[in-house]
Amino acid sequence: MSVVVVGSVAYDGVETPRGRVECMLGGAGTFIAVSASYFTDVCLVGVVGEDFAEEDRAFLAARGIDLEGLQTAPGKTFYWSCVYSEDMNERTTLRTELNVFADFEPRLPARYRACPYIVLGNIQPALQRRVRVQVPQARLVAGDTMNYWIETAREELLAAIRDWDALLINDGEARLLSGERNLLRAARRLQQTGPRILVIKRGEFGAVLFADEFIFAAPGYLLEEVWDPTGAGDCFLGGFVGYLAERGLDPRSPDADPKELARAVVYGSVLGSFCCERFGVDRFRTLSRAEIDERFRQFKRLTEF
Amino acid sequence: MSVVVVGSVAYDGVETPRGRVECMLGGAGTFIAVSASYFTDVCLVGVVGEDFAEEDRAFLAARGIDLEGLQTAPGKTFYWSCVYSEDMNERTTLRTELNVFADFEPRLPARYRACPYIVLGNIQPALQRRVRVQVPQARLVAGDTMNYWIETAREELLAAIRDWDALLINDGEARLLSGERNLLRAARRLQQTGPRILVIKRGEFGAVLFADEFIFAAPGYLLEEVWDPTGAGDCFLGGFVGYLAERGLDPRSPDADPKELARAVVYGSVLGSFCCERFGVDRFRTLSRAEIDERFRQFKRLTEF
Repeated sequence: MSVVVVGSVAYDGVETPRGRVECMLGGAGTFIAVSASYFTDVCLVGVVGEDFAEEDRAFLAARGIDLEGLQTAPGKTFYWSCVYSEDMNERTTLRTELNVFADFEPRLPARYRACPYIVLGNIQPALQRRVRVQVPQARLVAGDTMNYWIETAREELLAAIRDWDALLINDGEARLLSGERNLLRAARRLQQTGPRILVIKRGEFGAVLFADEFIFAAPGYLLEEVWDPTGAGDCFLGGFVGYLAERGLDPRSPDADPKELARAVVYGSVLGSFCCERFGVDRFRTLSRAEIDERFRQFKRLTEF
Repeated sequence: MSVVVVGSVAYDGVETPRGRVECMLGGAGTFIAVSASYFTDVCLVGVVGEDFAEEDRAFLAARGIDLEGLQTAPGKTFYWSCVYSEDMNERTTLRTELNVFADFEPRLPARYRACPYIVLGNIQPALQRRVRVQVPQARLVAGDTMNYWIETAREELLAAIRDWDALLINDGEARLLSGERNLLRAARRLQQTGPRILVIKRGEFGAVLFADEFIFAAPGYLLEEVWDPTGAGDCFLGGFVGYLAERGLDPRSPDADPKELARAVVYGSVLGSFCCERFGVDRFRTLSRAEIDERFRQFKRLTEF
């Protein structure tokens, strides 16, 4: 079943210990959509400027992503640049030029509104809410956020999250949003904010899923070479929802098998790990579904005892 | 089969966000021996001062630990104190008073030398070597070290490690010893230093096992309350070797099942997690083997997909 992804489509400048790229395709919406496209049909809602390159549009289209919801507005595409620390566990934002993204108003084409799976990338919580009301019948609404919104738009964010089925955030955000340092207690508090499903992403240390009383913990997949971690969390989100959509799962159903959510977490981890193997979306220019499934099986061998 | 543990027996002063204890039983040898005692017979080799309390000796004896190798020397018992950061991921040593430990010369009673499993806690690498030569026929020699020895006695440490079957260290130590930032490449280098089995402990983020080409990754066990992480890594080591000894496993055998090593890692994680639930060794005053096995099963449920 198809997935609607709402999020930023951007040009990124990234410097890591492995190299530097001045300007390449990026943005949360892009990474989520590209990852989910390995599992199911994807519709992308976002905005780009008049400078958006034909080859980048062609790359998304070649992944089978429906671009009717990708608006083009007068002006330039959202630009963001950053530099990573030596161990790549920290990054410093260098420039944020919102450009056309400053006035982004997500409009879902009529045929997108029947999509059962909705992914809300990290955008202004008020915008996330305005998308949510356009898809009242969605089977699964999953979303992400960031420190900036937790600190500057807390109430609006909590109001948005209340209507989601799944919240996927990193451990620092989970602590900040819950006010709890201990991860288990942070999770218990966040489960009370609305979403039945909570995934706490821990970067290279894996991820933990909470769904009612069910808990699943995945270690990080070890990579010999990390080129660029940008987008790994978004790819996790895309792989997670993509797998659930491919299987047509309804996590709200009382018969839902929580192990399917665990498998979705592993697919999320797998997509996130591939993302780090090249700069930007480059790994996805050659990545095949067979490679994804092979790494999923490796993950199983890696964790079985 | 029985296990000989060589390491410090100490009095610790610990301050964490949960409280402060001025003086309590501690030391790597203590934590390793107590943890291993849940699986098999344990012989402890160490030294204490004349101030060592009868009740602490009685606690060790009640865990079935053979204390013939625990020497008493004129003077005071090794004392060490520390304070933990708010998130307990960092600690600062406040005092280190070696006392009788300064002249510690590990002497294995004759009947200890036939023990097939030897655990070398974090002590001076030259001492670790002098123990190793006393047990040439051991089936498994497993050891630990710390940043201090890596920085000040690197060559001696590498000479010691060369004759071990298993090296268990934390991720920071693995990076420091290998000179490699990437964990997978650090592991590959460390596997060339001698030990066939390498376990990299990542604190609350779990552990990774490398045995030839076999890799196993365990996530951290989530605890709602961490009182005192002191000794958790030592308890991991005690649980790891304790399980292998209980099963009578010979990891050198070509028929050895690497999944047994993975299970040993999980038992190590389980013992480490219990250790954090109270100050010092207090959790082990009431902990039962049934609780350990129940948490092992929980760990399985937590990671299966």
